[in-house]
Amino acid sequence: MEGVDHLAHERNKTEFDVDAMKIVWAGSRHAFELSDRMARLVASDPAFRKDDRTRLGRKELFKNTLRKAAHAWKRILELRLTEEEAGQLRKFVDEPSFTDLHWEMFVPAIKGQGTDEQQQKWLPLAYKMQIIGSYAQTELGHGSNVQGLETTATFDPETDEFVINSPTLTSSKWWPGGLGRISTHAIVYARLITNGQEHGVHGFIVQLRSLDDHMPLPGITMGDIGMKFGNGAYNTMDNGVSKFDHVRIPRNQMLMRVLQVTREGKCVQSNVPRQLIYGTMVFVRQTIVANASTALSRAVCIATRYSAVRRQFGSREGGMETQVIDYKTQQSRLFPLLASAYAFRFVGEWLKWLYTDVTQRLQANDFSTLPEAHACTAGLKSLTTAATADAIEECRKLCGGHGYLCASGLPELFAVYVPACTYEGDNVVLLLQVARFLMKTVSQLDSGKKPVGTTAYLGRVQDLLHCCCDVQRAEDWLKPGVVLEAFEARSARMCVACAKNLSKFENPEDGFAELSADLVEAAVAHCQLIVVSKFIDKLQQDIPGKGVKQQLQNLCYIYVLNLVHKYLGDFLSTGCITPKQTSLANDQLRSLYSQIRPNAIALVDAFNHTDHYLGSVLGRSDGNVYPKLYEEAWKDPLNDSVVPDGYHEYVHPMLKQQLRNARL
Amino acid sequence: MEGVDHLAHERNKTEFDVDAMKIVWAGSRHAFELSDRMARLVASDPAFRKDDRTRLGRKELFKNTLRKAAHAWKRILELRLTEEEAGQLRKFVDEPSFTDLHWEMFVPAIKGQGTDEQQQKWLPLAYKMQIIGSYAQTELGHGSNVQGLETTATFDPETDEFVINSPTLTSSKWWPGGLGRISTHAIVYARLITNGQEHGVHGFIVQLRSLDDHMPLPGITMGDIGMKFGNGAYNTMDNGVSKFDHVRIPRNQMLMRVLQVTREGKCVQSNVPRQLIYGTMVFVRQTIVANASTALSRAVCIATRYSAVRRQFGSREGGMETQVIDYKTQQSRLFPLLASAYAFRFVGEWLKWLYTDVTQRLQANDFSTLPEAHACTAGLKSLTTAATADAIEECRKLCGGHGYLCASGLPELFAVYVPACTYEGDNVVLLLQVARFLMKTVSQLDSGKKPVGTTAYLGRVQDLLHCCCDVQRAEDWLKPGVVLEAFEARSARMCVACAKNLSKFENPEDGFAELSADLVEAAVAHCQLIVVSKFIDKLQQDIPGKGVKQQLQNLCYIYVLNLVHKYLGDFLSTGCITPKQTSLANDQLRSLYSQIRPNAIALVDAFNHTDHYLGSVLGRSDGNVYPKLYEEAWKDPLNDSVVPDGYHEYVHPMLKQQLRNARL
Repeated sequence: MEGVDHLAHERNKTEFDVDAMKIVWAGSRHAFELSDRMARLVASDPAFRKDDRTRLGRKELFKNTLRKAAHAWKRILELRLTEEEAGQLRKFVDEPSFTDLHWEMFVPAIKGQGTDEQQQKWLPLAYKMQIIGSYAQTELGHGSNVQGLETTATFDPETDEFVINSPTLTSSKWWPGGLGRISTHAIVYARLITNGQEHGVHGFIVQLRSLDDHMPLPGITMGDIGMKFGNGAYNTMDNGVSKFDHVRIPRNQMLMRVLQVTREGKCVQSNVPRQLIYGTMVFVRQTIVANASTALSRAVCIATRYSAVRRQFGSREGGMETQVIDYKTQQSRLFPLLASAYAFRFVGEWLKWLYTDVTQRLQANDFSTLPEAHACTAGLKSLTTAATADAIEECRKLCGGHGYLCASGLPELFAVYVPACTYEGDNVVLLLQVARFLMKTVSQLDSGKKPVGTTAYLGRVQDLLHCCCDVQRAEDWLKPGVVLEAFEARSARMCVACAKNLSKFENPEDGFAELSADLVEAAVAHCQLIVVSKFIDKLQQDIPGKGVKQQLQNLCYIYVLNLVHKYLGDFLSTGCITPKQTSLANDQLRSLYSQIRPNAIALVDAFNHTDHYLGSVLGRSDGNVYPKLYEEAWKDPLNDSVVPDGYHEYVHPMLKQQLRNARL
Repeated sequence: MEGVDHLAHERNKTEFDVDAMKIVWAGSRHAFELSDRMARLVASDPAFRKDDRTRLGRKELFKNTLRKAAHAWKRILELRLTEEEAGQLRKFVDEPSFTDLHWEMFVPAIKGQGTDEQQQKWLPLAYKMQIIGSYAQTELGHGSNVQGLETTATFDPETDEFVINSPTLTSSKWWPGGLGRISTHAIVYARLITNGQEHGVHGFIVQLRSLDDHMPLPGITMGDIGMKFGNGAYNTMDNGVSKFDHVRIPRNQMLMRVLQVTREGKCVQSNVPRQLIYGTMVFVRQTIVANASTALSRAVCIATRYSAVRRQFGSREGGMETQVIDYKTQQSRLFPLLASAYAFRFVGEWLKWLYTDVTQRLQANDFSTLPEAHACTAGLKSLTTAATADAIEECRKLCGGHGYLCASGLPELFAVYVPACTYEGDNVVLLLQVARFLMKTVSQLDSGKKPVGTTAYLGRVQDLLHCCCDVQRAEDWLKPGVVLEAFEARSARMCVACAKNLSKFENPEDGFAELSADLVEAAVAHCQLIVVSKFIDKLQQDIPGKGVKQQLQNLCYIYVLNLVHKYLGDFLSTGCITPKQTSLANDQLRSLYSQIRPNAIALVDAFNHTDHYLGSVLGRSDGNVYPKLYEEAWKDPLNDSVVPDGYHEYVHPMLKQQLRNARL
């Protein structure tokens, strides 16, 4: 049955132009073509084979990643790829490696925090990979609280050097990728001390290993921190620990774009605005949101295709059983995730615009929108990563027992994805930042300060406290104005309720601590509103392609109405909607499921994932699941011999034992 | 710092008798002592060391499990352990292995479905492990729909044999543990065919491998189905695939307790009631509920202890930072899980009683309570396993970045646990069964049929449709009557609403399919009511030990009020409570968090887990987390050599490359 499309009957049902949707998903024709070209390049190169990954022991696995990283670099050079193309190629190799930290953290940190001189010196080395960099911020004892880092960098005016030191066990750098065994350099974050005074945490370029024999430089102890969650997954990367015992580096290796330390050890603030750092955070988190939609799209693609292949129950008169995708229970779990993938895609696209906007304003010394942009990206990072992690696991469960096999691709996708909930800001810590910003915004309303950007609706708070939802029939739930008002009212009312409860505390910080769980919920409501409003904005755009807009509309309202259902307590307790309207929302949701159903396979085809990138037997594009699962099984090392290693030592004697005195 | 208790300051805060709570948790003094003894026996035996497990490749890992299984068997015989003790010992070895299937499925299947003769023949062999059995039900193409299994067992009257055959690829047996490489025998489920007629699916004892050289018998193809989710985890077990090519077994190897096939191939129903099978299901699922509380207690124990060790932010005047367990956001995520562990424990205890009750009734030919008991155990299996799987992952996230390390124990606990959501009845399929039973119960109310057991409250449905929740102050939420009525009203109203909506459909099956997502939610509401009511029942018992009852009360209402908060949409949309009462519930919940806080460590100590069983550096009883994490890291194979394997081949050339024409 090779070459046969077992999902052809599904694809025949499609009611829209899939190719046009592919462009919408990718964001532009250029983005589509670039990503399509790189995906195929990787998929067709046997050196990038990855189906054996989960079977390898740690050392083998790691060596294999080194090989792939070297091969990727070779291809990047041979094909003279641009930076953008190279990034895409690494994405499709789909294996965490030391090069991630080098390109995504080390290089950007030098660009963002290094002086022109420092950039001129270090960037060419990094761009040619003549040095390999890591990013050493977190320590054994400190993650979220960066200002609590314990590593010190003490200026020694005698020698014009900084002394990098780990004064305690908990000050050991812990987690940086590549640090364990590969990186030659790292940006090490440490408390700057000059003339006996502390000046906060700053980054320092520290050489870690000899460029000749790769041995750690004197005073530096480094190792891998051990196995992490999942088969394959991040075990391809040497997340590391390092301790510094009074390691000396030249003064000019402190990244000095914002703060300079002079020859005498004096600290001098440069005229570069400190706010730049927030611009970088907006950039990094925008990438994370984009990655969330990609990860989610992979999981949804696998679960959707397999749900169309898998049949169970419901055979009538000896005919075929029902495809599990036709069960409403399956649809009500799967389709909201499909809708979320699209929703996150579009909000990610918008964040890309926001980053450009913020950058332009920064260059014009306009910092006015920065706090709002920062809060909004922090919140969206939290919202999308949390939802995606849960969704991947839900997709795995939607594949039943076979989802538990590594061959389904879902276990590794989950294990590789979940750290996104913790890195670059723990999700709950970020939501508290959003809440803090919202409370500040609400408290300033009376003084006439006009909220901007995604918080602009709070300027209409009085209206929102008294509006009532205009839904009489199920179809009313498809009106953008109705939906937006319901989400705005919910968020505004939750914010105002929190602010009111906070005002009852004498000490606002005590109140914030005591009510933090409620504040987190208000922040979530606000962030969901952003995603909903950006999806609705998208629908206002001119979208070419037969039936494409209709599908996006269906997905948008599936996303919306599923949120209404899931967060019903919020909507009802704040009086934004009535129980009757709730039930109309559910009716509408079920009807949308029926409308999306015939297009489900085409909607995941539009992600344009290669079978290589999906890495899933269950999610194969041709739907030829069972024969391939069967084939895959035999590749397990346990099947190398019919009688397994250990049988003669441990099992045979058990079987042949003559028992006399057992109580069993 | 060895030997120092870093959590002593926490333990000093305890307000109740921990030893008494240990007995409550274990269920009885006998159960406590047995489990304590077996846990220590395993923990103190270096042969059962498991901290290296996640680092091993598949073959090594598997061989290691064979070694442990043999050693466990040796100890069981040497110490002349009882069946109960042996089961506990295997539990604490804490590594899925072929012996699980042998003892938990193969032996019970023969006991439950075999005739006296068959039991006399096969049980002694199994008890002495002179044969090793598996349980081969699921196939590549069929899991939930057992009646759809494709394997056939055709009676051949000529030779007085059954011919076991796999007619299609999808009929390959797939998943049975131990089948891949170890089992010598299996109960194979197949469609019985005699005289050209089908007689449903039955179990057959099939020898798979030679007892001499362990080679598969002629006509049988067997192998391991490959890697599964997680490091270590179920990869210690050889879940297998097998295909049968017209394999012949004697007629007397069909399990014939319920249905006999005569020498002539005639099917004869025995006088043993078919309902027996439901009794077995009640038993198995009761075990699953008990296991849920255990798995959850391990995760909660790790997260609670680490939350007391970990400090982040909030340092005032250079003092210590705040313990993360003191943050309300942490408490509002962690304490409901702690409460759930206890809630599931007590409902599990009650299920044990229910099983005894059902068994006694069956023996007296009283089948009246069976459907209700069956629905209730199916629902509780679904509810507790789904909640536990989510909770383990939530506990992992509550441990921040370090929770992602295998050394935290949580990744493996998750990977090992999640199949419980799928095996022994997919959770959603089970909830639909519960819903079906509830709808039947509601539809029979008019005809005067009195609902029994956990559905008895539906007999008061008219009252429940009109009652209103009597909460005026936050403390009112601590009244058992108030809480029970709110949960009963919610469930009853959701059931009645579903029944009403179903009645609008001409074809009831179409209605059931269309509304299945709503029906699942009604089933969940019903099951949560059961858990709540059994916890409240527990509080009515005489519970000795200073302060123990008070702690259980706090936990009970944390469980209750967190459910009210999480399922607020249900309560509000059905009008069971008002928005004002919602906010009182939240106030009460926060106050309970403060009351439980000083006792949190003692409440997880009460689970009496050894450090060996927890298998977590973060959850160490002595709280000595950081030095041990640091120590653990160096054990990774990647740290065997300072310059890693692969460096010279792949990294060195990269660093030394002289680039001329790259575009980067």
